[in-house]
Amino acid sequence: MSIEEWHYQDGQLFCEDAELTRIAYSHGTPTYVYSKSRVIRNFRAYAGALKGLPHRILYSVKANSSLGILDLLAREGAGFDIVSGGELYRVLAAGGDPSKIVFAGVGKTVAEIRFALEKGIHSFNCESEAEVGLISRAALALNRTASIAIRVNPDVDAATHPYISTGLRMHKFGVDIAVAAELYHRAAQMPGILAEGVSCHIGSQMLKIEPLLEAADRVLALVAQLRSQGYPIRHLDVGGGLGVAYEPDERGPAIQSFIERLKPRLAGLDLTLMLEPGRSVVADAGILLTRVLLLKQNGAKRFVVVDAAMNDLIRPVLYDAYHEITPVQEPSGKSSLVDVVGPICESGDFFARDRELSEVKAGDLLAIRTAGAYGFSLSSNYNSRPRPCELLVDGKDVYLLRHRETYEDLVRGELLP
Amino acid sequence: MSIEEWHYQDGQLFCEDAELTRIAYSHGTPTYVYSKSRVIRNFRAYAGALKGLPHRILYSVKANSSLGILDLLAREGAGFDIVSGGELYRVLAAGGDPSKIVFAGVGKTVAEIRFALEKGIHSFNCESEAEVGLISRAALALNRTASIAIRVNPDVDAATHPYISTGLRMHKFGVDIAVAAELYHRAAQMPGILAEGVSCHIGSQMLKIEPLLEAADRVLALVAQLRSQGYPIRHLDVGGGLGVAYEPDERGPAIQSFIERLKPRLAGLDLTLMLEPGRSVVADAGILLTRVLLLKQNGAKRFVVVDAAMNDLIRPVLYDAYHEITPVQEPSGKSSLVDVVGPICESGDFFARDRELSEVKAGDLLAIRTAGAYGFSLSSNYNSRPRPCELLVDGKDVYLLRHRETYEDLVRGELLP
Repeated sequence: MSIEEWHYQDGQLFCEDAELTRIAYSHGTPTYVYSKSRVIRNFRAYAGALKGLPHRILYSVKANSSLGILDLLAREGAGFDIVSGGELYRVLAAGGDPSKIVFAGVGKTVAEIRFALEKGIHSFNCESEAEVGLISRAALALNRTASIAIRVNPDVDAATHPYISTGLRMHKFGVDIAVAAELYHRAAQMPGILAEGVSCHIGSQMLKIEPLLEAADRVLALVAQLRSQGYPIRHLDVGGGLGVAYEPDERGPAIQSFIERLKPRLAGLDLTLMLEPGRSVVADAGILLTRVLLLKQNGAKRFVVVDAAMNDLIRPVLYDAYHEITPVQEPSGKSSLVDVVGPICESGDFFARDRELSEVKAGDLLAIRTAGAYGFSLSSNYNSRPRPCELLVDGKDVYLLRHRETYEDLVRGELLP
Repeated sequence: MSIEEWHYQDGQLFCEDAELTRIAYSHGTPTYVYSKSRVIRNFRAYAGALKGLPHRILYSVKANSSLGILDLLAREGAGFDIVSGGELYRVLAAGGDPSKIVFAGVGKTVAEIRFALEKGIHSFNCESEAEVGLISRAALALNRTASIAIRVNPDVDAATHPYISTGLRMHKFGVDIAVAAELYHRAAQMPGILAEGVSCHIGSQMLKIEPLLEAADRVLALVAQLRSQGYPIRHLDVGGGLGVAYEPDERGPAIQSFIERLKPRLAGLDLTLMLEPGRSVVADAGILLTRVLLLKQNGAKRFVVVDAAMNDLIRPVLYDAYHEITPVQEPSGKSSLVDVVGPICESGDFFARDRELSEVKAGDLLAIRTAGAYGFSLSSNYNSRPRPCELLVDGKDVYLLRHRETYEDLVRGELLP
């Protein structure tokens, strides 16, 4: 199999050794297609670079929470970064090891905290004193000790989209690093709480590693301070956020070089490093496969109307995100400026605007690239559209990870009074 | 029952004669609560104002497609504006009359067109010549005649949010009004097609009616032109788009005065007027009921973290939309500036920013107002959060329209390879 999982062969786009045209005939469109090999390769880039350093890679479940993907990563030895009881349920359903789970998030409910304690997760990343109090009471009631880290807010600008930037004081996340030591002091006095970690997470889709390193330096200074005060800090979670290349001339930061620059900072510290990669593991391992329904000309504007829509992939309208769009039939040269849009009745339902795309006609297939992260996980039934199916390609083999929804699924759980 | 369905009584917020605190105890949170009386009142405002004029009110299903809401409106005699096969399935499941259904949308699939023809819907609003061709072939194959309207693009600025503005040439919607007559000419020659309507729709959430009237004037000129050329135009669909008041000092346009200004334009024309209201029927009939999980202070910023999130109601982050937030316990006076945010791990997960809100504490209930339209219909399972339940209040009675999703529901249809 080629090292590049998405490639043309005899004029046809393949995922590994599976032809996308055949996949569309067998499974219909729109359909998410993931490459098993690429997921594993991305994960192993972290695992390989971290060799020799005490560490745990916690895959960030929210990026792509399909059981098939979680199962794959669990087999690779991944731990999991979860943010809800639903994600805990998913990881367990996929065979993930609870002792490798860290529960993050700014608004955990008491029911979710109890669920996590009962299942014996590794630890909680805590976002406020009120939350540590909730965990303490739940741990007492269940006669357990909860390992926690305080998520500190290092006040570093992640230089990414405002909706996914999280490390500034104006954000809801974390505890101001300047007052964090005080919270460790109070947490140490709460029954059922063992505060043995420090965590931070400054944002997502970062294309430069400097903000991440700056944040790491700030939290390492806090670790040193806390240890000097006698707190038994054993792990440091520097979060996730490594970006991926969405645009043709973009380059995501290399995982290896990021780790190489982290390593010397941790030398001799006897600290387990935790990382929470999500997007950088799955984004470029997935596409959204869609078929052209019709072409339409409005004055000077040319529209390619496809059968996928914003309910299937909301990133373009929600984050103003760029996704490359590749014809499944290898293009022959001629191209024109088009908008690629879906059937939903909103102008916000688009995948590309004023994009140079090779000539396509009704019935042609397109691959909306780099859609493996925050694609299906953000999908909805807007306009009463059944959600697409999800497939995992392994060499020549194609596995169904999730059935396409039916009209019956749309109304499941509904009643007529 | 009070004419104002949402009101305080003995210090507690009620929906009609049902206390929201009790509803939260019985059904949990987050929960969508709709007032039956308000839905009916809003619908009847259209029906009453249109009396004496040949008309059909087509409720726009995408605004709120719950079977219970569709059932209610079908009993009121409503027709339905649908945009997908899934919406057709829903209307039929709710007992809607197919002969009162109009199928709109820019990307109908062949399967959807056939489904609609088989069920005998009233007509299609067509968005392109390619689409009329698809309908013609499907009608021929099924030995039917399809009644169609061409959706023309009157090039009127709806002066609303760009994502829900649809009436300019730069948008994917409709056919340029300047070339529409030519398309009627070609449609008249296609077998199985009866082009007897003209339609337009320039946007949503319009707070002024002048753009709507201007669009109506332009399409009425087209109707006159088409009739003079011998085309048997029988109905005019001027779309939807009447806005509602989201902010306290906002006022949506009165339905009555809009209709009063439309009426003289239609006098003596022997034209059935079709309207496609959605938001103005259901928006202010619904709230999203949520509970405060905890309070959090980050430097000078104060956060109220609630158990609803952007997966339940995405309008604030997607459209930068304002929703009033009302404490269920009547406020006593003191207030402060807060952000109301959900538990999802994105800075985009907010309901209000820098909002003056009366003092609340963990456990308090809040009503996120005017959430009956584009609320549940845009909801997702992001962060693996089960979708909320939906309730319909009728006086003292509370009916479950949709069960709260479970963790098991999250993984339904998924497989492990």
